[in-house]
Amino acid sequence: MKTVALDAMGGDHGPKVIIPAAIRALRKYPDLKIILVGKEPVLARYIKKLKAQRMERLIIHHATEEVEMHESPAVALRTKKDSSMRVAINLVHEGKADACVSAGNTGALMATARFVLKTLAGIDRPAILASFPSVTKLTHMLDLGANIDSSAEHLFQFAVMGSVLVSLVCGIDRPTVALLNVGTEDIKGSEQVKETAQRLSECSALNYTGYVEGSDIFKGTVDLIVCDGFVGNIALKASEGLAKFLRQTLIDSFKKNIFTKFCCLMASPVLHSFKRLISPERYNGASFLGLNGLVIKSHGGARTLGFYHAIEEAVLEIEKDVLGKISENIASILEKASHEVQ
Amino acid sequence: MKTVALDAMGGDHGPKVIIPAAIRALRKYPDLKIILVGKEPVLARYIKKLKAQRMERLIIHHATEEVEMHESPAVALRTKKDSSMRVAINLVHEGKADACVSAGNTGALMATARFVLKTLAGIDRPAILASFPSVTKLTHMLDLGANIDSSAEHLFQFAVMGSVLVSLVCGIDRPTVALLNVGTEDIKGSEQVKETAQRLSECSALNYTGYVEGSDIFKGTVDLIVCDGFVGNIALKASEGLAKFLRQTLIDSFKKNIFTKFCCLMASPVLHSFKRLISPERYNGASFLGLNGLVIKSHGGARTLGFYHAIEEAVLEIEKDVLGKISENIASILEKASHEVQ
Repeated sequence: MKTVALDAMGGDHGPKVIIPAAIRALRKYPDLKIILVGKEPVLARYIKKLKAQRMERLIIHHATEEVEMHESPAVALRTKKDSSMRVAINLVHEGKADACVSAGNTGALMATARFVLKTLAGIDRPAILASFPSVTKLTHMLDLGANIDSSAEHLFQFAVMGSVLVSLVCGIDRPTVALLNVGTEDIKGSEQVKETAQRLSECSALNYTGYVEGSDIFKGTVDLIVCDGFVGNIALKASEGLAKFLRQTLIDSFKKNIFTKFCCLMASPVLHSFKRLISPERYNGASFLGLNGLVIKSHGGARTLGFYHAIEEAVLEIEKDVLGKISENIASILEKASHEVQ
Repeated sequence: MKTVALDAMGGDHGPKVIIPAAIRALRKYPDLKIILVGKEPVLARYIKKLKAQRMERLIIHHATEEVEMHESPAVALRTKKDSSMRVAINLVHEGKADACVSAGNTGALMATARFVLKTLAGIDRPAILASFPSVTKLTHMLDLGANIDSSAEHLFQFAVMGSVLVSLVCGIDRPTVALLNVGTEDIKGSEQVKETAQRLSECSALNYTGYVEGSDIFKGTVDLIVCDGFVGNIALKASEGLAKFLRQTLIDSFKKNIFTKFCCLMASPVLHSFKRLISPERYNGASFLGLNGLVIKSHGGARTLGFYHAIEEAVLEIEKDVLGKISENIASILEKASHEVQ
């Protein structure tokens, strides 16, 4: 039996999308148990509405508070000790859940998870990893915003963690690892990037292939891209912004007049399949790596399908023992790397 | 009469797209003279093919060498003194052209332009500025890759130059200026970003509005976004990569079978107008700001329409005296800012 705790009050849509996603996941995975953390009366009302009262594997765990979407992480950590987010993380810490999923405030989730769960031995800073689609395959990237001003040592640790996760979750033997840079030539990049490249190329446990550029994120060039959280966050959000703008422009083009509306009607099956293919909901579920516990972050704006995918990511990571394997591998890779350097 | 020198051998497609673009620009602007810089026999052959031999305002200036697209900037600068790129920049330096346009290697163009033209008084580093579309208006952003590890002072200078350009080219009185960051709260960001925010908020000559996130690039939130070249370059290329991926997915969705091909046929007028609306060719033409001369960079892969837009950007910047106004404003703003700080 796998147990996942959900911060049922988090995100832009809260229990309205989280509970249906939980029910869907329970139907798909017969060995899954879900603990909904949040205000009991609110959650019970939704469950009743969805006629899921009799689902034995769906449990409510009461928590009196909520972390707001724009609340300061420090304030949330200090003052909201009984928030749905904090309690969901506590359940992981106490061994009552194998993973937790939240669509809440990223900063507060990271700060709380780090405070409660602590980082793994050998890891200085946790990082956020997510996947991006391309025509050929998924590309994973980290860090997407947990750390700014990361050192070469931090970036090296991100590469090790990310490589272990991709290898397990995607079943790739030696995933290719690249470093995000402003060009692919050796002379390109900041001091931090050059130093990291040196460190990565000396580590035989990693399949390091060199630099990639921003355009490679959506090309499927490599399995894993490593970067500082400032850059990763900007790349992620710029891409989200562009996708939204293009979608809106496409909709507007089809809505212009009666003729274009007719065109839209004719093309609608294809447009629907296109929308499904590129939907960010499909790629929802970012992993917080480097913590002493599994934490999955759902996009704040995710709807039922998106949150369901975030739960699936948690199930997969429990199944593949991502946490145990990262701990093991980090110890051995870091030890090996220190020998290689000597 | 305005004179623009073109690096006619640069870019992925060279004279094949550059000469038709030049002819189109000459037809549109009767007071424009264009100097094509490159191998005379090659250029003369293309001109003959396009039956443009009698265009008096189209002149060939022979240059024996070419800078390759992936050549090291240092090598290009040191060894290719008679390259089409270098000679086009020389023409600006000698006052024989008011601006130059090149689709060649960005690094080599920046290094050569900086070496030949030098930076303006008060400017430590030149920066690359380009515009991004949104549903409401254009957003300009700099630096897109000329500088990595920029200091707060550099970012401040970028803001001043960008603000003057946007004000002139878009006719906006006090363009809104924002700083790219991983969040909009005051506590967010690197030390470099926080220090720049402080500096910008103290400068009354700028209409500084605070932080924006990556998603704002395509939202039309502000007129000008300022960032370090590493981050700007990754955001630009990630967006280019995503746009390409989405376009390919849309094409593939319509090509799947005979039914979807029929849908495509029915929707083709709308798809064409959508393609035109979002085409990167429309937004082609990045400005190198901070140099003692106007230099416009076209995308390496630009076709005739794209290169034409880059020439148009050069014409507009000459017309609005962007160079003179930036020099004037920088002197006065920097002087005023130093008083405000005291």
